[in-house]
Amino acid sequence: MTPDEDSSSAAQIAGLRLARTEGVGPVTFANLLSRFGSAQAALEALPDLARRGGRPTSPRIPSVADAERELQRGSSVGAQLLLSGDPAFPTPLAATDGAPPLLWVLGDVRLLVRPCLAIVGARVASAAGRRFARELAVGLGAAGFVVVSGLARGIDAAAHAGSLETGGVAVLAGGVDQPYPPENQDLYRQLARQGCVVSEQPMGHEARAPDFPRRNRIISGLSIGVIVVEAELRSGSLITARLAGEQGREVFAVPGSPLEPRARGANNLIRHGATLVEGVEDVLEALQAPAAAVRPTSRPPAATSTQSPDGLFETLEALLSATPVSPDELARAAGAPVSAVTAALMELCLAGRAEIVGGGLAVRA
Amino acid sequence: MTPDEDSSSAAQIAGLRLARTEGVGPVTFANLLSRFGSAQAALEALPDLARRGGRPTSPRIPSVADAERELQRGSSVGAQLLLSGDPAFPTPLAATDGAPPLLWVLGDVRLLVRPCLAIVGARVASAAGRRFARELAVGLGAAGFVVVSGLARGIDAAAHAGSLETGGVAVLAGGVDQPYPPENQDLYRQLARQGCVVSEQPMGHEARAPDFPRRNRIISGLSIGVIVVEAELRSGSLITARLAGEQGREVFAVPGSPLEPRARGANNLIRHGATLVEGVEDVLEALQAPAAAVRPTSRPPAATSTQSPDGLFETLEALLSATPVSPDELARAAGAPVSAVTAALMELCLAGRAEIVGGGLAVRA
Repeated sequence: MTPDEDSSSAAQIAGLRLARTEGVGPVTFANLLSRFGSAQAALEALPDLARRGGRPTSPRIPSVADAERELQRGSSVGAQLLLSGDPAFPTPLAATDGAPPLLWVLGDVRLLVRPCLAIVGARVASAAGRRFARELAVGLGAAGFVVVSGLARGIDAAAHAGSLETGGVAVLAGGVDQPYPPENQDLYRQLARQGCVVSEQPMGHEARAPDFPRRNRIISGLSIGVIVVEAELRSGSLITARLAGEQGREVFAVPGSPLEPRARGANNLIRHGATLVEGVEDVLEALQAPAAAVRPTSRPPAATSTQSPDGLFETLEALLSATPVSPDELARAAGAPVSAVTAALMELCLAGRAEIVGGGLAVRA
Repeated sequence: MTPDEDSSSAAQIAGLRLARTEGVGPVTFANLLSRFGSAQAALEALPDLARRGGRPTSPRIPSVADAERELQRGSSVGAQLLLSGDPAFPTPLAATDGAPPLLWVLGDVRLLVRPCLAIVGARVASAAGRRFARELAVGLGAAGFVVVSGLARGIDAAAHAGSLETGGVAVLAGGVDQPYPPENQDLYRQLARQGCVVSEQPMGHEARAPDFPRRNRIISGLSIGVIVVEAELRSGSLITARLAGEQGREVFAVPGSPLEPRARGANNLIRHGATLVEGVEDVLEALQAPAAAVRPTSRPPAATSTQSPDGLFETLEALLSATPVSPDELARAAGAPVSAVTAALMELCLAGRAEIVGGGLAVRA
């Protein structure tokens, strides 16, 4: 190993340890990097930060050995680690709250910086729904979009199949070496070769129930819009659509007959403002711009102040409640600079005393 | 015949003649009655009014014999004549521009003063669409609404069938004694017995192509809302929906799969703001009130001034163009009272030199 490789590997290990630290999301990750200059410096400052934020014990930081093990397993299957802040890390995902500050990627990592649209829907989809999803994926691919979905049966599989030629991304709830379900093994192999497969989980992680909604926030987070093709009320696709809405992404839905239960979810989305989609044109029109121009470019705000006035923690804690408020609002109420409030909020989050919810708003934990 | 019956009959003859006079719609009809006190007085003033409006010849007024013949044929089939201004004349219809100032009614005339909702759609409807229309009509009937439709095959027939028990209105393009199409003869007879059948045409009038869109404006005019169940793009049901929108009525549409051509029209309406309907609840929620409270109560404005300044005709003609303007705007521009402008506009309309289009707006003829 050359000294360069060694230091790059050391930076990756520190980055992975910081990204896998309890309570660190992409916003906090970016703030910490910006404030301390490197992941290693942030890791060293963490216990002190958490203590100043009022947390009795230090947050759980993975060991160097844990991080090395995860990196080795990843490289053994040919997966690449992306950390928030890497040029290849997808900007729209980095701009979302609660999204992971890291991604494991198997396949063509360059797809993730192209404009992505998610197509999601029922596992037990109708033949018509599958056909529609596949044709929509073909059309969106031809229009320059990368199609993102969840490798599930039904609509997801149809969307992946339609976008193999132009570029598709499967986001898994388990590790990128753990394709699920078994009947989509072929599709998984094709995507890993021609597109890419993505997960926030380490290799070997088998998906459990709570991993699926967590995975859905990555599907919507990667995408400038989410298109729901068939979905019953209270389905996972609607969770993805809700997350997309919270993340400020476009929500699209394909209508269906009231006599078709699989149309209920999509119709309900339309009723509540989702764009009605009968074909590619409807999507393009709603995005109202050539594909390359519509990508969100906002990055998480980075704290610029390195000072946290002593009384600010208490002031902020008193101001926080169950009602989400913006850092701007808190800064006005506290009479403190926004940068100081952002930094203090980060420490309160690390201490488990505040939480960042949708839209960058803060609540009492 | 008693003197009372004689005078009532004379008033009806005069009313029918005025209502059937070229260029007289419900707004002009109401204005003339209000200005001259009776239809007979208005008829006598008409030639003079038209001449003052600049028309070289008097508008065509049906003869007393014509009116008597129409009344006799109506009573021979048991139909009742309603003139705009009669307490039984449906208020929502009287409030629309371009609607007829008279209706022939076969059956229970009282249904027309209850809150009405139209259900319209494809003639060649799917079995699912028919079932949905019928169930929707049953539900709306149970919620207190009278269901209006056009006695066509498909969705119309299903909507009528579903509302027979609670009250249904068929609006015909021909006379009320000319049911069309032949396969809906039974439905027609049931509606004439349990509901009512309505037309602006005299008995014996067989519907021709232009009568159908004319008829559609009565369907929407009678109703506080129009529900489109299945409709291709460029179908008669969409004309009805458009008229409903222009008349300020609620437009509802039942979504369908993009792969179903009969869903295109309804989906397009939803895309442009129609309320998405999956069942009765969606309709009731959009109307947001107990059925009896949502009926529009606006009546056409009646002119109160009996004077038309000499120069006003010329001023108004100069102000009128192909772009519709309101009487208020004309009054401001002409520096004349709105009542005088309304009266002068009526005379210009009678003279064929102006026209009232949607929303009470005036254009040059």
